[in-house]
Amino acid sequence: MDDRNMVLNLMPNADFGYKVHGDPFSTNTRRVLAVLLEKGLFYEPITVDLKTGEHKRESFLSLNPFGQVPVFEDGNIKLCESRAITQYIAYVHSSRGTQLLNLQSHKTMGTLTMWMEIEAHQFDPFASVLTWEQVIKPLYGLETDQTVVEENEAGLENVLNVYEKRLGESKFLACNTFTLVDLHHLPNIQYLLGTSTKRLFENRPRVCTWVDDITGREAWKMACDHDKSWFGK
Amino acid sequence: MDDRNMVLNLMPNADFGYKVHGDPFSTNTRRVLAVLLEKGLFYEPITVDLKTGEHKRESFLSLNPFGQVPVFEDGNIKLCESRAITQYIAYVHSSRGTQLLNLQSHKTMGTLTMWMEIEAHQFDPFASVLTWEQVIKPLYGLETDQTVVEENEAGLENVLNVYEKRLGESKFLACNTFTLVDLHHLPNIQYLLGTSTKRLFENRPRVCTWVDDITGREAWKMACDHDKSWFGK
Repeated sequence: MDDRNMVLNLMPNADFGYKVHGDPFSTNTRRVLAVLLEKGLFYEPITVDLKTGEHKRESFLSLNPFGQVPVFEDGNIKLCESRAITQYIAYVHSSRGTQLLNLQSHKTMGTLTMWMEIEAHQFDPFASVLTWEQVIKPLYGLETDQTVVEENEAGLENVLNVYEKRLGESKFLACNTFTLVDLHHLPNIQYLLGTSTKRLFENRPRVCTWVDDITGREAWKMACDHDKSWFGK
Repeated sequence: MDDRNMVLNLMPNADFGYKVHGDPFSTNTRRVLAVLLEKGLFYEPITVDLKTGEHKRESFLSLNPFGQVPVFEDGNIKLCESRAITQYIAYVHSSRGTQLLNLQSHKTMGTLTMWMEIEAHQFDPFASVLTWEQVIKPLYGLETDQTVVEENEAGLENVLNVYEKRLGESKFLACNTFTLVDLHHLPNIQYLLGTSTKRLFENRPRVCTWVDDITGREAWKMACDHDKSWFGK
């Protein structure tokens, strides 16, 4: 069995000729890999070396003028913005693999969209700064700013208090099943579990269970295992 | 003709019992009003007084625990996050009034979603700080920080350079017709046209035409006219 066949054993993988330009350590790239793996889809990984600034060079800017990974290619369509890519894949393959949307009615979809926006506009601003300060800056030899960490932890606590209440009403954030909403949180949460911010998740029983649940998914574990998710690179 | 009948003369208005809790001067509230008016839908406006901090009091927090306007009510569903509300209304009323989505195929929808994400994650971070510094802070008697303005104008220029190129390929950002993508930009752009940041839009010919086009729409002009959009309050 070659590496590509190991991607996901849950179902036969399907090859639509997708390409992912990115970096397997980047949160935004991992968000897209998680969806592809939940859906059991092959993709060609193309490494964009962030450390040498490859994402700011002309060859990459022609793919994404904002100079950010990932970029997803499906034939003649090129998409940037990780949350747009995940939605695209979830809609195209709505009947395949894990059901990541909640398409029963306009109301269920509206609730899901609201929680996607909450992740993007309430959770992510604090979580991505905390990841940057505590995980990414040390990788680049930069010093963590503890004042920034404290300010953003205070903001994140308020968000997690809302989540703790919500998770008493439904098993996952949008509804009783795992959806794109939960998945979009994974990359930052995974990195923050390796920092002292972990305690903010652990201190809240329902949030703690939810975090265990979503970080334990096979597709997610594979997304974080670069030998499997970024095969041959 | 009473105030409610003046809302939009393009088509008979329809009353689904919608409620909008918000402030007609808030950018996020106006984003929702613009969609309701494009679709010719009645709504009951319920003022949340931001100046007295009503959005942080318990009665409002029970509607939106994040303490932000607007909140949209459709029967038993309550939605926060303006861009989730606009998408909900656009889907529920996809066949009514202005067609704000681009539903022909997964690819057209994927492109639209990508541009919605670009507005939210590339344009808005700079534009909303510029609106805050130059429009909102003076209203609260606070001083504009010119260093912050300069930094965010530099960021906005990079985004508008990408828009200038894009608008050479299609008439509006997502496609050749006006969609939610363009509409989501309106609240910040309208306020920034009253500041010196206006020159950044005027300096780019295609962006300038696009701004004229979208700010000149009847529904948008009505959204900004509180006597009409926030009738009876």
